[in-house]
Amino acid sequence: MPGQSLFLKLVEKDLSEFEEFLHHSSDKDVRQLLTELHSADVADIVERIDEDSRSRLMSLLDSVRAAEVLSLVEEYHQADILEAIPEDKLPEVVEEMDSDDVADILDDLPTEEAEEILDAMPKEDSDEVRQLLSYDEESAGGLMQKELVKVTPDLSLAQAAEVVRGQADEASDIQNVYVVNEQGLLKGFFPMQKLIFESPQKKVSEVMNENFFSAPVDLDQEKVAEMFRKYDILSLPVVDKRGTLLGRIMVDDIVDVIQEEASEDIYRLGGVDTEEHISDSPFRSMRLRLPWLLVNLMTAMLAASVVGLFKETIQRLVILAVFMPIVASVGGNAGTQSLVVITRGIALGELEFGNAKKALFKEVVSGVLNGILIGLIIAIVGFFWVGNPVLGYVLGLAMICNMFVAALAGTAIPLILKWVKVDPALASGVIVTTFTDMTGFFVFLGLATIFMSYLI
Amino acid sequence: MPGQSLFLKLVEKDLSEFEEFLHHSSDKDVRQLLTELHSADVADIVERIDEDSRSRLMSLLDSVRAAEVLSLVEEYHQADILEAIPEDKLPEVVEEMDSDDVADILDDLPTEEAEEILDAMPKEDSDEVRQLLSYDEESAGGLMQKELVKVTPDLSLAQAAEVVRGQADEASDIQNVYVVNEQGLLKGFFPMQKLIFESPQKKVSEVMNENFFSAPVDLDQEKVAEMFRKYDILSLPVVDKRGTLLGRIMVDDIVDVIQEEASEDIYRLGGVDTEEHISDSPFRSMRLRLPWLLVNLMTAMLAASVVGLFKETIQRLVILAVFMPIVASVGGNAGTQSLVVITRGIALGELEFGNAKKALFKEVVSGVLNGILIGLIIAIVGFFWVGNPVLGYVLGLAMICNMFVAALAGTAIPLILKWVKVDPALASGVIVTTFTDMTGFFVFLGLATIFMSYLI
Repeated sequence: MPGQSLFLKLVEKDLSEFEEFLHHSSDKDVRQLLTELHSADVADIVERIDEDSRSRLMSLLDSVRAAEVLSLVEEYHQADILEAIPEDKLPEVVEEMDSDDVADILDDLPTEEAEEILDAMPKEDSDEVRQLLSYDEESAGGLMQKELVKVTPDLSLAQAAEVVRGQADEASDIQNVYVVNEQGLLKGFFPMQKLIFESPQKKVSEVMNENFFSAPVDLDQEKVAEMFRKYDILSLPVVDKRGTLLGRIMVDDIVDVIQEEASEDIYRLGGVDTEEHISDSPFRSMRLRLPWLLVNLMTAMLAASVVGLFKETIQRLVILAVFMPIVASVGGNAGTQSLVVITRGIALGELEFGNAKKALFKEVVSGVLNGILIGLIIAIVGFFWVGNPVLGYVLGLAMICNMFVAALAGTAIPLILKWVKVDPALASGVIVTTFTDMTGFFVFLGLATIFMSYLI
Repeated sequence: MPGQSLFLKLVEKDLSEFEEFLHHSSDKDVRQLLTELHSADVADIVERIDEDSRSRLMSLLDSVRAAEVLSLVEEYHQADILEAIPEDKLPEVVEEMDSDDVADILDDLPTEEAEEILDAMPKEDSDEVRQLLSYDEESAGGLMQKELVKVTPDLSLAQAAEVVRGQADEASDIQNVYVVNEQGLLKGFFPMQKLIFESPQKKVSEVMNENFFSAPVDLDQEKVAEMFRKYDILSLPVVDKRGTLLGRIMVDDIVDVIQEEASEDIYRLGGVDTEEHISDSPFRSMRLRLPWLLVNLMTAMLAASVVGLFKETIQRLVILAVFMPIVASVGGNAGTQSLVVITRGIALGELEFGNAKKALFKEVVSGVLNGILIGLIIAIVGFFWVGNPVLGYVLGLAMICNMFVAALAGTAIPLILKWVKVDPALASGVIVTTFTDMTGFFVFLGLATIFMSYLI
């Protein structure tokens, strides 16, 4: 594919050369170049070029391609790309898109703009989209598309093939033909290839599989993704409470969900708002990060006030202040280790309450064992640094206690959050390190206070 | 599905009741229960029950089901489940599996055991698996399966349908029929449904799409996943340098890759070895975490030695030791925020060197702006806590400097690692917080030393 290597050349440099080309070439030349590029690559480019270039590019795409591009750009950029499409072309473009993609875009637009677009659509299509918009964006209903192929069980396969042929125009990537009764209730499915490999005289009811998975329309997207992952399926029908077939979810949308959920977990662990995006302005990302920093400031003050309790001790033996960061840092790291393993286990469905006790036991054992090792090392370091063995004991003992608390906090906090049905990933590093900082300082400085007579 | 709810009941309690049932019921009753469960659910159960129950359960599954279960269990448990299959049944079970699943399992076995299993397989199959084993596990070759359907361009669609019917037994989930010439070079593909919707007299060459994506056999799995994500594809052909069709990669395997890569990123950020698994023994996870803790111990000593430079200053004004944790903690948090956004941007391909300068600028601007705000607050707190405005200025100024360094380190370290082709996620929190701890302590205590005469 010539367009492919061209695209790679384009992104390796930055895109100013491409913008130049857009503005100084004839419509015909630009169109020629665009035919050589995959829509996903056009989507990639259009996200990054300036507004003028974007308008020019989108106006030169035919509506099928424009629809593809609009479906493939990142959600974050969709509203901007939509702006770039000439208003008179918009209805055509929207009509070419899958219902779920239209709903996703409209969901992010101001209500008025969304209504305008809906009004310009054929009533049948806009009804579908309106229905999709009524579901929670992060539920099965929010993920599904209305486009699918369905037949009734009484048809022969030859008749079914005819019906499917009529529906296939609308629906792309058909793996399964769904079977519904006259009330629209989902009764089963069969893989598309049965239409080729089985005798055309056979009835749909003979070849269909009645043992199928389906997602209730209000199922959370994380659970939906888990079904796809676990059962290795490519598409999943969505039903309402009565079992009426409402739509289907495709695996490529699930790929995006998994990516999104992973990003969210990583962001939360690092104390970053999940709404933040790498292309945000400095001011937006400043605003989004400030609350987390303020929480951290508050928790850090808690830790500081623990130190404040021991001002006199530090006054008498200032080397304690030197070792404070070590106790805090290693303890915080150990707590984060437990936290990461536990929250990931919960996110992947590998950790339930059934095996939580075992996990807690394991974390505490491995935490305390490492505490003993690290404690020994730091005790020796402390002895040689200061020349007083008692300081070594105090440091070592503080480290063991801190690692115990670290394992406990890193395990228990996400589990408790899950228990009270809060997202366990909200137990970001900040909360756990507050615990380890406070205990670390308290035990270390407390022990030093008790054994002060041996220390100076 | 009755089995479905039964399964849910099973995992909600722990599995001891199920183990009881296995040992005290007749073969017939157990088999009956197993027919009601999806293989993925059996896989879930078999991962968690004790060894005896596992052997009993696996011996009662027929080889088709056993193959499904073995393909669906997590990689971490595969060797154990393999053990549980009676030796004389093993060849049958392996024969039922897709070539990529067999290769994945054998890859994790000791060479001798793997050879034994390969020797018991029909030569044709074992040759395929041996070929797959020769590729890097984390490359396109390591992900692909040999099972696919292919035809030559000169056939009519009617003839192609016959050929496909013959191959379809082996290959499940067929979306695309691949078109190869006599040399085996990939020339195009067409979606399965063309076999139904197009006239049977048409030639394959007339309906095939010559504009296709393919993955070179040595392409890294992360890049493969990016292609799936970007182009919304369900399967991808894999070719060698000459363009020979070697196999195909299915999207359900990519779902696992994305999950895996996300877990790795999260683990690295938290300083956990990517080999660690939630079911590891306490001793194994202790051993895997110790090196990270030792690195952290070392870096914490660096930070401590910075504090050591200012022992006299702290001796003169011990309240400084109380504020030290605040400067360190908030700075570390800000650094981690930048780190998370930047490494995630790199992982998702949204951040390249082209826009790195912009990202660095943004991080620094938002970091410094938040530094000013947090600095103001902490200055006021410092003033009221201690009653000395100069301490407030020192604290505030230290905070601004520290947030500047945090943004710089959190952005530059992963970018530099990417530049020298090391995984940017290796810049775990530990490295960045070492920078922020050291600068934070240095600036705060240094300023305090300079302005000491105003502070006491």
